[in-house]
Amino acid sequence: MVRLINKADYVQSLEKGLKVLKAFGSDKKVMTLSEVAEVTKMSRAAARRFLLTYTDLGYMHSDGKYFELTSRVLDLGYTYLSSLDITEIAKPYMLKLSNLVNESSSIATLDKNEVVYLMRQQVSRIMTINLGIGTRLPAHVTSMGRTIMAMNDFKEELLDVFEYEQYTINTISNKIELKKELQKIRQQGWALVDQELEAGVRSISAPIFSKDGSVKYAMNIGCQANRVSKDRLITEFLPHLKEAAGNISSALKKI
Amino acid sequence: MVRLINKADYVQSLEKGLKVLKAFGSDKKVMTLSEVAEVTKMSRAAARRFLLTYTDLGYMHSDGKYFELTSRVLDLGYTYLSSLDITEIAKPYMLKLSNLVNESSSIATLDKNEVVYLMRQQVSRIMTINLGIGTRLPAHVTSMGRTIMAMNDFKEELLDVFEYEQYTINTISNKIELKKELQKIRQQGWALVDQELEAGVRSISAPIFSKDGSVKYAMNIGCQANRVSKDRLITEFLPHLKEAAGNISSALKKI
Repeated sequence: MVRLINKADYVQSLEKGLKVLKAFGSDKKVMTLSEVAEVTKMSRAAARRFLLTYTDLGYMHSDGKYFELTSRVLDLGYTYLSSLDITEIAKPYMLKLSNLVNESSSIATLDKNEVVYLMRQQVSRIMTINLGIGTRLPAHVTSMGRTIMAMNDFKEELLDVFEYEQYTINTISNKIELKKELQKIRQQGWALVDQELEAGVRSISAPIFSKDGSVKYAMNIGCQANRVSKDRLITEFLPHLKEAAGNISSALKKI
Repeated sequence: MVRLINKADYVQSLEKGLKVLKAFGSDKKVMTLSEVAEVTKMSRAAARRFLLTYTDLGYMHSDGKYFELTSRVLDLGYTYLSSLDITEIAKPYMLKLSNLVNESSSIATLDKNEVVYLMRQQVSRIMTINLGIGTRLPAHVTSMGRTIMAMNDFKEELLDVFEYEQYTINTISNKIELKKELQKIRQQGWALVDQELEAGVRSISAPIFSKDGSVKYAMNIGCQANRVSKDRLITEFLPHLKEAAGNISSALKKI
């Protein structure tokens, strides 16, 4: 990674500290000092100082041997969510949309080559699509990722950052076809992804416009392919989705 | 605050770095270097180094003058959520419960004197109760906070940490009454809070038991007082709530 800042300005212990925090997760719920040192490739002495500092600040809990994160860590992510106008504004529209079509709805933003889920309203099903706030997915195979890319002036270079993996037989897995698809999405103003990331999952998305006309967020309806046809997504769900996204865009312009 | 760790072990720049991150939020979405220095009570030089490091690591974005958080910050909070078994396990039960009673449901944990919302399933209403994941509320005036306190061996000292504020005319605002209420909750195995934190809001909660028999989480149904009576909460909703919380407890025991 190219450092854009002067070496003297760089707080290395902050980077290391964040690395220690991120070492924990779904496969590492509870860790010993040795495990943290190993995962983060730090010395035991260094890892120990970070773990003790986190424990002292209330971000971790320890019985002396094992360390685990506390709910205080959530404050950090919450800081970001509460810094966004979208999360409060979109809530009622998203609930209404999800109720109208009786399918789950989400809002995501783009971070480099990934979409990040910011909000999600689920409906009850035996099979639900397992996505939470903070989940990241490869942007170019999701309807929300494609919508955000297409509705802004996407740069040719952006198309080079993706790994064109063939997730299913439907996946668009080359740059030329993806570019064509993005141009189509830009013209029609919405995106549909039909079982490209996972067999059995369809999703349709519409852009949410910021005050300056750019598109930072997209909103989708996601559903099981065997329950909702492509045609129904477009003729029945899309008008509701567009209306909800339009209402959120208007509300964003007013603040 | 009493430092439990040796001064030499303490990574002060980590503490400062987290302070810079937390300076942002709902009332400070975008800040200049001077503003960050002022809020965090740091020198401009120190604040600048942290801001540049965050920007370099992708946690902040800057046009040179203004700084704002990026969605990458969400990864930090997500690290905690994904380290919990409860979030995945509880999802289907929570959806089912919320659908059955057609009211919003949440799961929270206790952090010192506050409850922290970990999950939430909302239903569509004109008036919705505005709570997101990561939201903190004073534990002693919430049904989930009281449930978690009551179902564990709560220590007398815990009752001293609360500020006994009179939020509404209903609020239990002294230690003796709160202790009595907690004993009642412990006996009956559930808690009901009737417009103690906010007029018009009622909530009923049940405990979620961990493998070791302790209670780390509680699950609630929250609703508008003018729509759902206390009686209906107890006779109609509570059995569903208990069943859902019981199913989640059983599932937690199996992993």
